[in-house]
Amino acid sequence: MEKIYDLVILGCGPAGLSAAINATIRNKEVVVMGTEICSPPLHKAQVVDNYLGLPAMKGKDLLDAFQEHAEKMGVKIMAQKAETITEMDGLYLILLGEDVITSRTIVIATGVPYKPTLPQEDFFLGKGLGYCATCDGPIYRGKDVLLIGHSDEAEHEANFMAEICNKVYYIPLYKKVGSLDSRVQILDSRPDSIIGTDFVEGLRLKDGREIAVEGLFVLGGETAPDRLIPGLKIEKNHIIVNRQQETNLPGVYAAGDCTGPPYQVAKSVGEGQVAGLNAAKYASKR
Amino acid sequence: MEKIYDLVILGCGPAGLSAAINATIRNKEVVVMGTEICSPPLHKAQVVDNYLGLPAMKGKDLLDAFQEHAEKMGVKIMAQKAETITEMDGLYLILLGEDVITSRTIVIATGVPYKPTLPQEDFFLGKGLGYCATCDGPIYRGKDVLLIGHSDEAEHEANFMAEICNKVYYIPLYKKVGSLDSRVQILDSRPDSIIGTDFVEGLRLKDGREIAVEGLFVLGGETAPDRLIPGLKIEKNHIIVNRQQETNLPGVYAAGDCTGPPYQVAKSVGEGQVAGLNAAKYASKR
Repeated sequence: MEKIYDLVILGCGPAGLSAAINATIRNKEVVVMGTEICSPPLHKAQVVDNYLGLPAMKGKDLLDAFQEHAEKMGVKIMAQKAETITEMDGLYLILLGEDVITSRTIVIATGVPYKPTLPQEDFFLGKGLGYCATCDGPIYRGKDVLLIGHSDEAEHEANFMAEICNKVYYIPLYKKVGSLDSRVQILDSRPDSIIGTDFVEGLRLKDGREIAVEGLFVLGGETAPDRLIPGLKIEKNHIIVNRQQETNLPGVYAAGDCTGPPYQVAKSVGEGQVAGLNAAKYASKR
Repeated sequence: MEKIYDLVILGCGPAGLSAAINATIRNKEVVVMGTEICSPPLHKAQVVDNYLGLPAMKGKDLLDAFQEHAEKMGVKIMAQKAETITEMDGLYLILLGEDVITSRTIVIATGVPYKPTLPQEDFFLGKGLGYCATCDGPIYRGKDVLLIGHSDEAEHEANFMAEICNKVYYIPLYKKVGSLDSRVQILDSRPDSIIGTDFVEGLRLKDGREIAVEGLFVLGGETAPDRLIPGLKIEKNHIIVNRQQETNLPGVYAAGDCTGPPYQVAKSVGEGQVAGLNAAKYASKR
């Protein structure tokens, strides 16, 4: 029998770790999906003076104290990113690369709200714009495409497209480009906006150039929470929750910056606690 | 010109102090109305392990850390109790004994929800039951009354009633009775329930005795928040707030245990922060 977690927590910032320790105390099986730096905005904060009990802390030191606390309680942090989450028979299946894990509940604590890479991404999604080149690749066989990569993990998708497309343009949004197929043409400008009326016709660059393509891919950027979990209700870029941190989906909770302002540590820790305790209760009932 | 505070915060537990430091950082004029022990339930907690960043703390030590942080930020705590709060021209007047202070906003952080001393207090209020004997005394001239005192401060009210009533019974809910008028008869049993259908007809004691009286007073007990601030909306003993910690009254916020479960430190600190920041914003606009 495959392992079923009680809580899968997305994000290892203040909200995620607070949810994790609170559910762990309730003897729940918890796993946190984290990133290298658990909360980039907190990590950069020069001084945090309004988290009660720990005055005048550097953001980084506060984050360290949070992680130490979680480690002390035996909280597991996996350096993985959930790609999609689907519900099946009241359980949630979380796709991580080639693995799938199963959980009774999900706590979304992914931090600052999602910012699209390009304006109008939502409108053009499925109309020439995609987030997975290897998935949609065959549609663009023999055509011209442009890929925007947030990290070097996007390069293998560019190389794959070079095999089947007529022309592949690539804009790296990171510093060191690794090993690209010689047929891939790197553009050394930033993306500005999508050209097209009903479908993608090209991309305008910051330097004014216009590149005509039929397919456009944004790879490795932030994932909008409602794309991660289909059906999740969002308003003005924030996940809608009630005072129990419940979203519109049963067993799915959200806490911290992703639920809206104020973007503050204590608010996130408090919401994480409520989400963690309620998710633990929900998991017990199932 | 009399001083106008930006925030008057009722309660010096985790929610109240978190509100205070957050509004102080926003350069607001803040005063906290506290009690000797700021959070009796936290003070008694053997160990708190789920306030992120401060693992395995004795409740008392956590409370001390909170108070130190607040003192460091220059937060003023007054050992006074608000008796009633009334709104006038968009400002709140807070009655403290013989003083009145004025504030643009109120943050209620009074902790664990109000428990009435007697069942059906709400029903009998104004129908023979009252909370101020000296105020209602004249109605009971020449009649029999019973006073329940939570502290020796109630004794002067009993003595006052002895001057004007036919018979005055007194039940002290504290240990050392001080100086009572010889005409006051102390009952050495605990109160059980109110006797009466439409109006108070008497009090049933835990030992089974029934004392016939027309007037009944509960003195020095906890004050229900909606009696403290008339018009405040309450549901199942909790103050109704939205996710911004706003109550139904403009400029009145609530945070912590008084807004409902879970009764936990991080939840209180988080809500206190949101209430403090929003009250500060509200005060700035006025």
